[in-house]
Amino acid sequence: MTRPDPAYPANDDPTCIVVDWGTTSFRAALVTQDGRTLDRTETPEGIQNIPDRSYEPVLMRALGKWFVAHGPLPVLALGMITSKTGWVEVPYVTCPASPADLAGGTISLELSNGAPLIFLAGLTDPARKPYADVMRGEETQIMGFGLDRDTVVILPGTHSKWARLRGGAIDSFQTFVTGEIFALLTQHSFIARSAGPASGKTDWGAFQRGLDLTSAADGTADAFLSLLFSARTGMLFGHLSAGEVRDYVSGLVIGHEFREARSQDWFTAGDSVGMVGNDGLNMRYTKAAQTFGLSVIDGGENAAVLGAIALIGGLSRGKLGPA
Amino acid sequence: MTRPDPAYPANDDPTCIVVDWGTTSFRAALVTQDGRTLDRTETPEGIQNIPDRSYEPVLMRALGKWFVAHGPLPVLALGMITSKTGWVEVPYVTCPASPADLAGGTISLELSNGAPLIFLAGLTDPARKPYADVMRGEETQIMGFGLDRDTVVILPGTHSKWARLRGGAIDSFQTFVTGEIFALLTQHSFIARSAGPASGKTDWGAFQRGLDLTSAADGTADAFLSLLFSARTGMLFGHLSAGEVRDYVSGLVIGHEFREARSQDWFTAGDSVGMVGNDGLNMRYTKAAQTFGLSVIDGGENAAVLGAIALIGGLSRGKLGPA
Repeated sequence: MTRPDPAYPANDDPTCIVVDWGTTSFRAALVTQDGRTLDRTETPEGIQNIPDRSYEPVLMRALGKWFVAHGPLPVLALGMITSKTGWVEVPYVTCPASPADLAGGTISLELSNGAPLIFLAGLTDPARKPYADVMRGEETQIMGFGLDRDTVVILPGTHSKWARLRGGAIDSFQTFVTGEIFALLTQHSFIARSAGPASGKTDWGAFQRGLDLTSAADGTADAFLSLLFSARTGMLFGHLSAGEVRDYVSGLVIGHEFREARSQDWFTAGDSVGMVGNDGLNMRYTKAAQTFGLSVIDGGENAAVLGAIALIGGLSRGKLGPA
Repeated sequence: MTRPDPAYPANDDPTCIVVDWGTTSFRAALVTQDGRTLDRTETPEGIQNIPDRSYEPVLMRALGKWFVAHGPLPVLALGMITSKTGWVEVPYVTCPASPADLAGGTISLELSNGAPLIFLAGLTDPARKPYADVMRGEETQIMGFGLDRDTVVILPGTHSKWARLRGGAIDSFQTFVTGEIFALLTQHSFIARSAGPASGKTDWGAFQRGLDLTSAADGTADAFLSLLFSARTGMLFGHLSAGEVRDYVSGLVIGHEFREARSQDWFTAGDSVGMVGNDGLNMRYTKAAQTFGLSVIDGGENAAVLGAIALIGGLSRGKLGPA
C-alpha cells in the first residue's frame, strides 16, 4: 500500500495535492503516485487568519497554478481545517480502524473547478483512560508507514503518539505530551532561566545522560517531577553546564516517555518498533529506543504523503469512481 | 522549640526581624518571641534590582523605623540574598542536620547600628540521585514545625519539598517541581489555550477527579505525560468544562507528586505527615494526602518565623552571647 503499483511506473505526473491546513499556516504539496513532492507552497493563511470562513477562495488562489498546469487534481485536506473550528468538521473514525474505515470516514466536496476536495478523518481510541484519545493527521502518516506489519509505531512530536498495528488496522494508540513539556521547560521555567542560548547543535552526551537516568532500574526515574529538578542541582553543583542542560532535559523527557510507554505495555526490551519521522526528532527517539532495548524500523520522512496517496487509491476504487 | 518558653510570657516586645530577600522582592517582618508578627514591610527591591550590590543602605532604609523604635534587634536574612548572586553566599549545611548544625552554618555581620545581621544557611541532601538536592528557606520552616517528632513533613510550593525528621534532625529531603509544572501548563500550554479565565474560586470536584486518577491502582497514572493529555480529550468529549480544567490539572499534578513520593518511600497509606503552609496550597495538599490514605499534622502558617526565632534562640545561647 505504501509502494507504487508496479503497473504504473514512477513518472513526474502529479497524482494529487496534499494540504496540511492548520491554525496558523497553510501548506500544500503537489505529489506523484510514488510519493515524491514536485512542488510545494506555504502561506500564513491558517484557519484562524481567514475572515468569515472564506476558505475556498484562499484554497483556489494557493493551488490555482497547479490546477492550470495539471487539471482538477484531487485535493486531500488534513489538520485543523477538518475540526470543529475549520471548514468541515470530520467526525473521528474509531479504533480499530482499517484503511477502508479511514477512507470511509472522509468527507468530500467538489471545488468550483470540479476537483474533488477530500477532508481526511482523525482517529479516536475509545479504550484509552480516563477519556478516549484522539489524533488528527498521524493516522495518515501511519497509513504511509503501512499496515501490513503487526507492530508498534512511534510518531514523535509535540504530542507524540504510540500506535499498535494489528491485522491490517490501527488497533489502539496513546498520546504523550512530551514535546510540549520540553518546550515549556526550556522556554518558560527555571531551566529556561539557567540554560545558555540554544546553539542549534545537539549535545548528544548530555542527551544520553538524561536518557540513561530514565532507563535506570533503581526507581529514581519513577519520580518525574523530582527528576526534573536535577537540571537545577546539576548546574548548581557543576555536573551540568549551561550549554548541556537543554539536551539533558530533552533526554529526561523523551526517556520518560519511553519509560511510561513501557509501563503501559507498549513494548518490552528486544521488540522492534516503527518510527515515522517528524519535527526532526527521529535521531533523539531512535537513541531513546536503543537505550530501552528496542530496534527501530525507519518509516521514512514522507509517510504523510504516502498515506494520503494510499487513501486516494482506496477512494479511487470506491466513492470517486475509477481513476 | 516551636512553643514560647513559659518563663517568658507572650508580650508585644519584638524579639527580632526576619527578612525574606528574594530575586524580585524584599519582605521583612517584626516578630515577637512567640511568633506573632507586629509589623511588616515589602518593597520591590529584590536582589536583581539593586545596583552595585549596595545591600546595606537598602536594608537600613527599610528597617530604620523599627531600629529607632526598638533598638538594634537581630536581623535574620534568608532567600536568594544568601546565594552566590546575593550579599553573602552561605554554604549549604549537609543532611542530616540538627538545629545546632543549621545555627552553626549561619554567617553573621554587624550592621552600622550594631545590630547583628545573620544570614541563614540552606540545606543539601547529598544522598539524592542523580545530584544532591537543595533547599533555601524551607529548612527554617521545618525548624518552626519542630524537630521533636520523627515524621515526614511536606512543604507545598513551586518546588515542593518532602523532608524526613529523625532523632531531632532533618535526615533527608526531596524536591518535586509540581507548582512550576502546574504554572507552565496553565499559563503557556494547550491547556492554557482552552481553559476559561481563572475565576479565583476552586472547583473542588474537578480537583478531586484529577487526584482520584493519580491514586488509582490500574497503572494509568504511571504515564504522567499521557495523563496530562486527558485535559484536552476531556474537554473535547465534554467530560470537562473550560471552568473545570484548571483545577482538574491541579489535581493531576499534585496527586502525581504524592504518587511519586510514595514510589520513593516517603510514605505508605495509614501514615501521618506534617504539612507546613505555603502559597495557599494547604487545602489542596491536605485533600491529596487524604486521597492517598494519610493523616495530616498541620504545621501552621508562621513556621518560617517560628523557625527563625528558634535559630535566634540557639544562636543567643551560642555565638551571640546570652540574650
